[in-house]
Amino acid sequence: MTQRVYVLAVTEEFSPKRWLIGEPLESGRLDEQLLPKRIALPVFASDALSSVAYGPQEMFLVLTIGGLAVLAHAPWVALGVICLIAIVVAGSFQLVRAYPSGGGDYEVAHRNLGPRAGLVVGAALLIDYVLTVAVSVAAGVDNVISALPALAPWRVELAVALIALLAIANLRGVRESGAAFALPTYVFIASVVLLVGTGLVRTALGDPPVAASSAYAVEADPITQAGLALLLLRAFASGCSALTGIEAISNGVPAFRRPKVRNARITLLLLGGVSISLFAGITALGVISRLHYAQDPCDLIGYADCATRPQPSVIAQLATAVFGEGAPLVYLVTASTALVLLLAANTAFNGFPLLGSVLAANGFAPRSLANRGDRLVHSNGVILLALAAALLVLVLRADVNALIQLYVIGVFVSFSFGQIGMTVHWLRLRRTRRREFRMLPLAISVTSALCTGAVLLIVTVTKFTHGAWAVFVLGPILWWLMLGIHRYYARVRAEIAADRTTVFGAKGDHAIVLVEELTKPTLKALDYAIAARHATLEGVHADVDPEATMRLERQWKAEGVRVPLRIVPSPYRDVAEPVVEHIRRHRAEHGPEVVTVYTPKLVGLRWWEHLLHNRRSTRIRQRLTLEHGVTLALVPWRLHPDLPVGPDPRPLPGDARRGQPARPVVRQQHRPARERR
Amino acid sequence: MTQRVYVLAVTEEFSPKRWLIGEPLESGRLDEQLLPKRIALPVFASDALSSVAYGPQEMFLVLTIGGLAVLAHAPWVALGVICLIAIVVAGSFQLVRAYPSGGGDYEVAHRNLGPRAGLVVGAALLIDYVLTVAVSVAAGVDNVISALPALAPWRVELAVALIALLAIANLRGVRESGAAFALPTYVFIASVVLLVGTGLVRTALGDPPVAASSAYAVEADPITQAGLALLLLRAFASGCSALTGIEAISNGVPAFRRPKVRNARITLLLLGGVSISLFAGITALGVISRLHYAQDPCDLIGYADCATRPQPSVIAQLATAVFGEGAPLVYLVTASTALVLLLAANTAFNGFPLLGSVLAANGFAPRSLANRGDRLVHSNGVILLALAAALLVLVLRADVNALIQLYVIGVFVSFSFGQIGMTVHWLRLRRTRRREFRMLPLAISVTSALCTGAVLLIVTVTKFTHGAWAVFVLGPILWWLMLGIHRYYARVRAEIAADRTTVFGAKGDHAIVLVEELTKPTLKALDYAIAARHATLEGVHADVDPEATMRLERQWKAEGVRVPLRIVPSPYRDVAEPVVEHIRRHRAEHGPEVVTVYTPKLVGLRWWEHLLHNRRSTRIRQRLTLEHGVTLALVPWRLHPDLPVGPDPRPLPGDARRGQPARPVVRQQHRPARERR
Repeated sequence: MTQRVYVLAVTEEFSPKRWLIGEPLESGRLDEQLLPKRIALPVFASDALSSVAYGPQEMFLVLTIGGLAVLAHAPWVALGVICLIAIVVAGSFQLVRAYPSGGGDYEVAHRNLGPRAGLVVGAALLIDYVLTVAVSVAAGVDNVISALPALAPWRVELAVALIALLAIANLRGVRESGAAFALPTYVFIASVVLLVGTGLVRTALGDPPVAASSAYAVEADPITQAGLALLLLRAFASGCSALTGIEAISNGVPAFRRPKVRNARITLLLLGGVSISLFAGITALGVISRLHYAQDPCDLIGYADCATRPQPSVIAQLATAVFGEGAPLVYLVTASTALVLLLAANTAFNGFPLLGSVLAANGFAPRSLANRGDRLVHSNGVILLALAAALLVLVLRADVNALIQLYVIGVFVSFSFGQIGMTVHWLRLRRTRRREFRMLPLAISVTSALCTGAVLLIVTVTKFTHGAWAVFVLGPILWWLMLGIHRYYARVRAEIAADRTTVFGAKGDHAIVLVEELTKPTLKALDYAIAARHATLEGVHADVDPEATMRLERQWKAEGVRVPLRIVPSPYRDVAEPVVEHIRRHRAEHGPEVVTVYTPKLVGLRWWEHLLHNRRSTRIRQRLTLEHGVTLALVPWRLHPDLPVGPDPRPLPGDARRGQPARPVVRQQHRPARERR
Repeated sequence: MTQRVYVLAVTEEFSPKRWLIGEPLESGRLDEQLLPKRIALPVFASDALSSVAYGPQEMFLVLTIGGLAVLAHAPWVALGVICLIAIVVAGSFQLVRAYPSGGGDYEVAHRNLGPRAGLVVGAALLIDYVLTVAVSVAAGVDNVISALPALAPWRVELAVALIALLAIANLRGVRESGAAFALPTYVFIASVVLLVGTGLVRTALGDPPVAASSAYAVEADPITQAGLALLLLRAFASGCSALTGIEAISNGVPAFRRPKVRNARITLLLLGGVSISLFAGITALGVISRLHYAQDPCDLIGYADCATRPQPSVIAQLATAVFGEGAPLVYLVTASTALVLLLAANTAFNGFPLLGSVLAANGFAPRSLANRGDRLVHSNGVILLALAAALLVLVLRADVNALIQLYVIGVFVSFSFGQIGMTVHWLRLRRTRRREFRMLPLAISVTSALCTGAVLLIVTVTKFTHGAWAVFVLGPILWWLMLGIHRYYARVRAEIAADRTTVFGAKGDHAIVLVEELTKPTLKALDYAIAARHATLEGVHADVDPEATMRLERQWKAEGVRVPLRIVPSPYRDVAEPVVEHIRRHRAEHGPEVVTVYTPKLVGLRWWEHLLHNRRSTRIRQRLTLEHGVTLALVPWRLHPDLPVGPDPRPLPGDARRGQPARPVVRQQHRPARERR
């Protein structure tokens, strides 16, 4: 088993995850060209399309509350959702050209409405990535259970297990390979089209499909006009969950084949078209087959042992109604649905680090998130995402309906901020470059800003009491946190900025070699210290254990080291403090010389080795870094030099969407350097 | 809020615990003299005495299974346990003198039966510390619930919360202050004595107390002779849980006041006497009051709503029987019992790191565990212990009876190995120093070795199927792990041992300053590099971002840095690899010179700062440590120099039992150093 340099990255900071992960997957060696449309569509659309699996379901669920009378309004509500999709697509369509760098709504808001507005979008999106994972996985489990009701008792465990699976896969570094995405997505589209098609044809032939749930009556309390309006709004708000994921493309432009913008836009149109038709089709079938879907199956009069028996998902019900109980096609539909939902969840694992790096580049997230090629960082992102999603799933018992309540808000925050930003963008264009300005784009942006804004309002109002409040608590906290980080960086930058006032001019050059035992690493450190020809040089040993000290002194003589050995007392079995005292004393006597402290450092390659090494010397160094005029010289001694070392060949989550060139698997070649003065 | 150097220890490796912990407690400044007997007794005895709280209970529980006929045998079983206590005390009594260093059974086995045997004891004890926490906390919760039945539904949560509480307390650094221990322990002893006394007096006066549970019949299947024998053995085995904790004293000799051994032995005798009398008294009362205690209250015929209503602990039942329902004394007894059980759990938090450091000193545990004054290490031990115990409590639903099944084994493994070791010790003495050899000690050791061995066998046989098997799985794994660590250290020691063959003699001296931006820290690094007067010196910048490079070059000229700046290309936005390439190239051209790489290092004092810094440069350093002939020179730049720095004043878990001198709260004073050649 060859261990590469990324193992080192871990030895710096232990993470049990390394356990789970081990060797890079072969998939890490997949070809890494930019994505052609036919591949980009599935990669970016799985999120948006999969939401068609729960969008209509949530809509029906809310309508069913009002009883059959209200259910009749389904088509109109659906129409509203469809128009909204069209509008949002149109909005992103322009956004993609105006800001092709992949910053998406965040960038637009940031550039046009100021960093704080951008940050709102950033926070909203971060939260939404978490929810994408939670909702998609929960919905996926729903469909699995619809096919295999036996699994019902393990709903939550199943969901958590799937999240863990996705996390591990991404930690190991699965490139979002087109192939892996294309097949399931296209199968999903095809099977749903087939489903809808067959259903409509049967209806045309006068044999409309009938959902099993149509047999169950729903008792509903008489409802006022106002109540009806509110209910329809809620249904609409829930249906809007079908819009989640459309933003993915505007965040992934860099990953497209040239001409990037053009391809991205075409893909966007395709995506819009497909999701509209799927949404319309499923709703139509639902209405035709008189499907009833209740939040709690026990509200369905006549539904046997509702307490234990789970309610099949809408897709599953329709498939059964159209193809007949237990037909293989039913399993195809549910399986492909579940699979696409998983892929959708996976996209979040790729989007999260990507957004993170954009935020970091603007100084709103730990700068390390911006480091390309830093696996550990991305891994932490993946783990963070997984934990948050798992927590959500646990708390809300993997209940899609409960999760959806939190979901849509984030998306529409980013949509509306993005479109408001676009509006500002056009207006500025109008002022600055009159020639390029056109009226239509502005109009589109304004409308879609208004619509998305209105929907955001509706969603908030109708869902706030159903759990959406949580988002309005977490969002601001996140926002505030990111601002704080930004402030911190600003302060540090100011602190370390080069200025004329601070004068450097260290003089004198004393060197100390910290000696614990006289081992090879220590001898090497001594040797290097000598080679560096410092003005003065001494070995220093803290007298923690008199016996050990004696032994050392004897050895020191025996080896004939040409450097004086100084023993400093350590009454408290502590090394750092006595050495610090010694250094201070030296600087007190010899004036403020630069003191270079040499310490040997054992370097192991295996992730667990650091658990057995260097704790102490690291602490000592930590302490020494606080002394004035001290430089720490680490002389590495590499253990088991047989293990190979090289750059980490594994792809990073989000690389594909970022359109990153792949790091080479083999070592880099010698490249000439140019010198400047 | 002043942050001291220990915060740094944390910035090295982030641990969320720091969050929970914050500032050291005032208790950290308690006086730190060695312990006089009257204080040592409670400190070391709480574990042993508290086990009297569940020992008899477990015995009664098992006997009750056999029905009233079998219950009659209680006195004889108790007698067996009492004799065993006496024997074990006698055994430890000699052990304390023979091995006063505090290694206890582990040391005896290690020295006399070889490291592997010692390791068995070590593993057994480690597991037992975990069980001490789990059992004591669970039993404590039992007594709390007996007093306040309303808390019954939260049994598990309560237990976990208590464990967390103990962990946090120990992380913050509570010294095992005599005072804190003395009061509850003595109150416990007093209250139980009062309980027993009153009970016996009332019996003498012809008004014996009657336990409420005596009213409930127990149905028991007719039982064979063999069955009876086995049942009695099981009862005995369960009763033996009263012996846990006696080993504490032999592990804590160094903490006693001089004459250490004598005081330790006297304390040991006191301890033995007290626990025997308490055990005897409680059993007697149990028999007199015809107490019935079933594993599942529903086995008690006539026990109303047994499903929901918890069964009061034996102590609680006796207290009620003696003092009457709801008498204040009842609450005193149960409260002091609960408190002592908590203290017992706390002792494990002190013993665990102590044993860890002994194991580490022998190279069987990560060496860092041996570092005195290394808070982080101890903290990790505490957290590990807490997590393990919490897991156990969760899995076994804080069910004392279930936990007890795992418990006794470890104790008796260490007892028997310890006593076998002692036997060997005496026999060797007989061979080597005939004059000092006496027959009696040998006899004692042999008997107690045989008895404890026999009990170990009984315990294993009677409990294996009841869950004890888990111990026989975990133990060996732990054992094997520790052996592996030992082997690893041995290999490394061999690898780095100084020998005549390896020749050092590095020559040449080239220095590189890694430059990212031209900030104060970088300028300081340049300045130090210049001060060190290396043979050759250059600044190196990896061209990750052309713009930034341009800017740097302009600034470089502007600042008029007297060092050539070399730009190395970085096609993969990576810094480490290009620099490595550059160094190799240099060494290829100029021969194998020592290359010193200067990097500025930002040093923050707050635990969260490292999250925002240095990730990348740390990675780069990590990579550079793998290159031949490279020395890393860190030039620290301290942020916000206003925060104070000093040694960590807080006491470490286990210090009290280790008899450690306290680290000073104020800075150490200047101490003269002696020079040697």
